[in-house]
Amino acid sequence: MNYPHDDLALHPLRWHADGSAIEVIDQTRLPHREELRRLSDRNAVAQAIRSMVVRGAPLIGACAAWGLVFALREDPSDAALQASVRILAETRPTAVNLGWALARMLARVQGIAPALREQAAVEEAIQICLEDIEQNRRIGEHGLAILRRLHHELHRPLRVLTHCNAGWLATLRWGTALAPLYLAQQAGLPIEVWVDETRPRNQGALTAWELGRAGIAHTVIVDNAGGHLMQHGQVDLVIVGADRVTATGDVCNKIGTYLKALAARDCSVPFYAAVPSPSIDWQVRDGLREIPIEERHAQEVAGVSGLDASGAVGTLRLFPAHSRCANPAFDVTPSRLVDGIITEHGVYQASAEGLAPLGALLALAARR
Amino acid sequence: MNYPHDDLALHPLRWHADGSAIEVIDQTRLPHREELRRLSDRNAVAQAIRSMVVRGAPLIGACAAWGLVFALREDPSDAALQASVRILAETRPTAVNLGWALARMLARVQGIAPALREQAAVEEAIQICLEDIEQNRRIGEHGLAILRRLHHELHRPLRVLTHCNAGWLATLRWGTALAPLYLAQQAGLPIEVWVDETRPRNQGALTAWELGRAGIAHTVIVDNAGGHLMQHGQVDLVIVGADRVTATGDVCNKIGTYLKALAARDCSVPFYAAVPSPSIDWQVRDGLREIPIEERHAQEVAGVSGLDASGAVGTLRLFPAHSRCANPAFDVTPSRLVDGIITEHGVYQASAEGLAPLGALLALAARR
Repeated sequence: MNYPHDDLALHPLRWHADGSAIEVIDQTRLPHREELRRLSDRNAVAQAIRSMVVRGAPLIGACAAWGLVFALREDPSDAALQASVRILAETRPTAVNLGWALARMLARVQGIAPALREQAAVEEAIQICLEDIEQNRRIGEHGLAILRRLHHELHRPLRVLTHCNAGWLATLRWGTALAPLYLAQQAGLPIEVWVDETRPRNQGALTAWELGRAGIAHTVIVDNAGGHLMQHGQVDLVIVGADRVTATGDVCNKIGTYLKALAARDCSVPFYAAVPSPSIDWQVRDGLREIPIEERHAQEVAGVSGLDASGAVGTLRLFPAHSRCANPAFDVTPSRLVDGIITEHGVYQASAEGLAPLGALLALAARR
Repeated sequence: MNYPHDDLALHPLRWHADGSAIEVIDQTRLPHREELRRLSDRNAVAQAIRSMVVRGAPLIGACAAWGLVFALREDPSDAALQASVRILAETRPTAVNLGWALARMLARVQGIAPALREQAAVEEAIQICLEDIEQNRRIGEHGLAILRRLHHELHRPLRVLTHCNAGWLATLRWGTALAPLYLAQQAGLPIEVWVDETRPRNQGALTAWELGRAGIAHTVIVDNAGGHLMQHGQVDLVIVGADRVTATGDVCNKIGTYLKALAARDCSVPFYAAVPSPSIDWQVRDGLREIPIEERHAQEVAGVSGLDASGAVGTLRLFPAHSRCANPAFDVTPSRLVDGIITEHGVYQASAEGLAPLGALLALAARR
């Protein structure tokens, strides 16, 4: 397993140096059970993505890349390559990074002789992982600058509120929204984190777990509590991740993000979204009208999972059987409520004008 | 059991005509189990209040009144009367209605001969129950006028969002926030209700249960979802109850109410609080600064109760054992976000000026 000079405990995916297998933390068992899954063939990887053993766009993309490595070891032919790309791409159809990672792997291996493909694929998969780590570290650096300014102003531990899980568990390391917090910890900047529970899937439990693993002080609150805390000066900054940011700076993220952004604005608390630049959708200008919101299964609302008194993971039904439940999974926070978009290239204003320089930078890089 | 000419199923408390006992729905078992508890002595009533078998300020007050009835049957002496008032008053120290109901019972019986006290107490307890029902019905009528106007404008079923439980389960009948909805149903006005889960104690389950019992269409959502629904025109009106309303119209209610009020204002959705006039605290002018917010046990956040696969009521732990939880139980919605306070005397603007006529009316009534 790799990642020299780094804390091995803070990666949700590690690979064998010879590229024969990866190990992932089974996120369906967190935070109650810490179990590693060894994956060494394509179907096992596909199943791990489907069943959400791995989650988070960057991590899913990287896993799929490794799935292709294992497929090419079995059969490096053109036909098998195409079939495996298709199978892996269909594991989570809406994850953008999945298609991106597979397209990149395909581009790397399809022009070379089948016998050389496995080695090239291993190199590319490692590259994808390392680039994600570097990208997140840079998001963290730019976010850290914001934290430093705030700390310089307030002269006390900073209290940061976050929603859902956009931490190292969802990426290869550091996370997006949480990257600035991990770098702040390394820099000796005192921070405390308010962790939104994030019903219905309670990803706050993952955030609490990974912050605990890293030794960062944190307090879990229900999704209802953040506004009250902001009213009483208990929150200095809100940082969230995002599934998608529009060209105009609207932020599509886990359901409930909009409510926290409203409270942040009402209480003059800065509100930032941290995303890698590929998560900016330059085609969308009006997030509220243009982004379709996934309606997930009502069962996620009607029930909840946790640890019972005997230490077993169980599920409970919360509401009367006859009561209908609705489960919109994401919402859109209008750019007017967002103080900035933190990316690996810097912090940009959440507006078409504010993001334009980033668009130009990316276009330039693409032309090189 | 009483309540002639009414639906017996929609009362959380019924009394025997001879005053010998009351029956209450055990609210600690809802929505999963529907169990009645027969209470016929003071200590059983005190324990039911303490253990939240009964909850909701008006219902607690009425139960305490009946507890005093049962105490006076056992021993109508002055000493026993004083002792029972003290014991019942201490069951839930923060409930205003509890003290109010006991003071009223005491005033009724202390001036008369011990032998006559029991009968007088029965009459007063029944009077307290019937007055609560009438008060809530009048809140419902005033709220119904708002619903009628909205329906006249929109010409389609009205979608109303509510938070926590301020329905018939919390009162003697009708509820406060839900009273307009029950009267709308009786009037044939089509309504659908969005029921906030209301973590951490999930009182939305009680709301879903009582709406279901009354046959009102409803959909349970997580507390994160309401803002998104309002952004997309899926909510026509928000009505909540309140634990306390200040003289200036600030609304202190279950944690999370403030976030919904922010979204309602941002999306131009009318936001109302429905309360009996005794819940207006004329001494408090700044709800945010002056109302202390109860911090309840972290265990309410860390765990959750529900029905397991075998049909038994169980509890699960949701977060890592090392993670701290915080649990502020209420928040204050500033009056600027509130479109009106619905009371039994009418609908008033949420401001000092708006509520002044109500204050004058109540002062006049008190002088009579």
